Amino acid sequence: MSTVNTQCKLAARPVGLPTASNWEIVTAPVPTPADGQFVVEVQYLSIDPAMRTWMNAGRSYVPPVELGEVMRAQGIGRVVESRNPKFSEGDTVSGLFGIQRYAVSDGAGVLPVDLGLAPAPVHLGTLGISGLTAYFGLLDVGEPQPGQTVLVSGAAGSVGNLVGQIARIQGCRTIGIAGGQDKCRWLTEDLGFTAAIDYKNADLRAELKNHAPDGIDVFFDNTGGATLEAALNRLARGARIVLCGAVSQYNEAPQGPANYMQLLVSRASMTGFVIFDYQKRYAEGLSQLAQWLTDGSLKSREQVEQGRVADFPDMLLKIFTGANTGKLVLALTD
Amino acid sequence: MSTVNTQCKLAARPVGLPTASNWEIVTAPVPTPADGQFVVEVQYLSIDPAMRTWMNAGRSYVPPVELGEVMRAQGIGRVVESRNPKFSEGDTVSGLFGIQRYAVSDGAGVLPVDLGLAPAPVHLGTLGISGLTAYFGLLDVGEPQPGQTVLVSGAAGSVGNLVGQIARIQGCRTIGIAGGQDKCRWLTEDLGFTAAIDYKNADLRAELKNHAPDGIDVFFDNTGGATLEAALNRLARGARIVLCGAVSQYNEAPQGPANYMQLLVSRASMTGFVIFDYQKRYAEGLSQLAQWLTDGSLKSREQVEQGRVADFPDMLLKIFTGANTGKLVLALTD
Repeated sequence: MSTVNTQCKLAARPVGLPTASNWEIVTAPVPTPADGQFVVEVQYLSIDPAMRTWMNAGRSYVPPVELGEVMRAQGIGRVVESRNPKFSEGDTVSGLFGIQRYAVSDGAGVLPVDLGLAPAPVHLGTLGISGLTAYFGLLDVGEPQPGQTVLVSGAAGSVGNLVGQIARIQGCRTIGIAGGQDKCRWLTEDLGFTAAIDYKNADLRAELKNHAPDGIDVFFDNTGGATLEAALNRLARGARIVLCGAVSQYNEAPQGPANYMQLLVSRASMTGFVIFDYQKRYAEGLSQLAQWLTDGSLKSREQVEQGRVADFPDMLLKIFTGANTGKLVLALTD
Repeated sequence: MSTVNTQCKLAARPVGLPTASNWEIVTAPVPTPADGQFVVEVQYLSIDPAMRTWMNAGRSYVPPVELGEVMRAQGIGRVVESRNPKFSEGDTVSGLFGIQRYAVSDGAGVLPVDLGLAPAPVHLGTLGISGLTAYFGLLDVGEPQPGQTVLVSGAAGSVGNLVGQIARIQGCRTIGIAGGQDKCRWLTEDLGFTAAIDYKNADLRAELKNHAPDGIDVFFDNTGGATLEAALNRLARGARIVLCGAVSQYNEAPQGPANYMQLLVSRASMTGFVIFDYQKRYAEGLSQLAQWLTDGSLKSREQVEQGRVADFPDMLLKIFTGANTGKLVLALTD
């Protein structure tokens, strides 16, 4: 175990895409746990689109990361020193450890990770917040019925690919929107999506008409922008739009859907949700996700990139250039 | 009874505010009823913001009015000739008679009007589609709970003023947004709104913060635009936005709410509805509205303007300049 901790702190709030000047990579002594605390050597970090929203000031579903604060991130690591009776040295745990090699914790929000069930990166994706987001967002907010048409944007991302798979398990027709032929092939050939639309090389409106001739019953939106507008124009009567993210909007002045009154035309709803509200039901969701994973009905894909804490800024940009397929995980080598 | 019918037909689709060139005023013989039909002398016409949307081509909740077709309108009139056993000469009836002095009907969608209960214009407003829209939109879609804060835009309009009054009857705090001091005074002093905001002379954001310190639980939106954005920024957790109209957007290129992701921040929903879907429950709604009207808990206000069929184009513009308070009705003098 090193005596030096490396941390990535927010140095300035970005305008548009984050750049090097928004970050400060610093070193500090590895923390010493006080009574009730323990220290985690962080091994894997979850890289998520939502991180960009946490960098902004102002009202959101979580407080912003403050300037000078270690960047917020979900991570998995090993307890290396403990003065908390519930956590022992050697335990593998997950929690909001932040972009740093060593984190000190009092155990709040920290959960044990069962490596016998799946490797650590899976616990950041399919068996983590991504899987829970797909599960509760689709089933509780979207309420898809068998035979209905479910559209998901960002379909090759960590949440989107699971939304499509869970919809398929529910007996729905599933249409994914993703960028590029490789991602689209993965969705249809490997994951069982009914159809996939490469938004970079297709007339989205025409393709939606083609693949959803009777309209879209549930749209699980991770991207916003032109995709949301196209989906609004194609809603079935009584459709539900599940607002999970708006990644196309995070690095520019956001634009609302000019045709939002299609919600009236289609007697439809658009509902936002935050996965943290479902904490009391996480066990239920994780149990079902694990069962589907075990019986093979759900496939899990992680893109694990080796790197150091100092590589996080570049890693985050991959999310916005579409360079990831499935769950993007940074495996720390510091 | 005249032998000449005057009609207002849609001559061209408007861009922006309708002008004289969008209309054609024509005369024709008064129709003769075929077997099963009857002829109505139209006395009162309902002037509504939604009329502007019916003038556009394209997908909406009702088919567009076609070029050369009599402009669609809800009206009340007297049966002057009948070959339908369910309707007798002298009956006062309401229906989609259109902007014309004489309409022929087979009775579809035509209802008797009880003039003993209230004068005819009230049956186009509080006891008509406006009242039903307020009743079902607020109660069924908005689901306000006693003590919650209900915001309504276009609050001095035909639907808006009733929404606020019904919310007050439900035990809610009610905030109305309207244009001008006179309208605002009417809302608070005569109708019992908790507060009214004159959007033409106020900092909407500051006023919402002032009057809804704990957030807005239900926003019944008739206007869209800047008002919708301000309300989105002030939603309470789990808020419901009821999309009824977007009158600020009807005569210009519509803009979506740039901050629609506040729906996620607030775990809120935005839902469109169309009153025609509630036809099977109209009797329930009308019965309750009539009771409230009779016991004085609901006040009805109509702005009845005398005029001819040829005055309809100017009358419609009053809706978009805010020249009406309460229900705007054209009483035909042709």
